[in-house]
Amino acid sequence: MNTLTNVTTVYKFRGKEYLASLSSVKHRTGTIELKITDKKSLEEWQGLYDAAYIENLTQKTGNFKRFDTFLSMLKSALLNTSQCVSLDLLTLEDLEMLRNRGNSHSQGFTTSHSSQMFSSSTNRRYLIVTYTVEYDRIHYPLALEYSGP
Amino acid sequence: MNTLTNVTTVYKFRGKEYLASLSSVKHRTGTIELKITDKKSLEEWQGLYDAAYIENLTQKTGNFKRFDTFLSMLKSALLNTSQCVSLDLLTLEDLEMLRNRGNSHSQGFTTSHSSQMFSSSTNRRYLIVTYTVEYDRIHYPLALEYSGP
Repeated sequence: MNTLTNVTTVYKFRGKEYLASLSSVKHRTGTIELKITDKKSLEEWQGLYDAAYIENLTQKTGNFKRFDTFLSMLKSALLNTSQCVSLDLLTLEDLEMLRNRGNSHSQGFTTSHSSQMFSSSTNRRYLIVTYTVEYDRIHYPLALEYSGP
Repeated sequence: MNTLTNVTTVYKFRGKEYLASLSSVKHRTGTIELKITDKKSLEEWQGLYDAAYIENLTQKTGNFKRFDTFLSMLKSALLNTSQCVSLDLLTLEDLEMLRNRGNSHSQGFTTSHSSQMFSSSTNRRYLIVTYTVEYDRIHYPLALEYSGP
C-alpha cells in the first residue's frame, strides 16, 4: 500500500515569497520530493531524497530521526504548525559564511558530511531544517538542485 | 581551573523517597558522580562516569549530548526545573520487562549497547534519564552499583 503526502504552500524565506511543495510516496521505503519556486522570478529548485539518505543525514548531525518523523517535521514546518521546527533557504555563500563563523553551539553545519555536500554547483540552494528544543538545536541541510527556468 | 557541581536532594522514585546526590568535577575532562540512597533502608547505589563514557552513551541512543549538556539535564531533572527531563530508578527485572515489551517508539532500551550493560549484577540499579521533546523521546540509562550497607 502506498501512503501519500502532498503539501503545497506559500513560504516566505528571508522576506521573499516562494511556492514550496513537498510530496512523499511510501511503498516499502519512503521518498521525499521537494520543490521550491521563487514566486517572482519563477526560478525553481528541486530535491529528491530516499529514506536511507534522510536517516543517514540526521544520524550524522548527532540527532537521529526516523524517516517518518523527519517527514512530519518538514510538513509541520511548511505549514507552520510546530514551534520547534523552522526553515531557511540558503545559497552556497550563505552557508560558507555560517560555517566560517564557526558556530560551535549548533550542530549540522560543521560535520565532515557538510563539507562534501556544500562543495559543488553554485546555483544550488540549501533548505535548512532547524530543530530547536530544550537542550538541542540541530540543523538538517537538504541540497536542492536548480531546475529552471 | 576546576568547575564543581554539587547537588543533593530528596527524589521520589516510584513512591519511595531517596537521597540523590550528583557531583561533577571538571578539570580538562569532566566526571559525574551519582549516589542514590534509599531513605528508609539506607541501601546505597553509586556510579562514576567520565565525559567520554557519557558522550558515547548518548551517541549510541541516536541523540548525542555533550557532557556539559547532559550534566545540565541531570541537574535540572533532580531539581525538577525542566519539563523535558525525568528520572526513573529501575532494577534489572524492570529493565528486562521494558525491553521485552519491545517498545518500538522509544530509543535507548533496545541498543546493542544496552544488552551488554544490562547483563550482570542483579543488585544493580539503573537511573533512566528520559528526555521528552516534540519529535523525540530518548532514554539514557546509567548503571549504579550497589554500595551498601
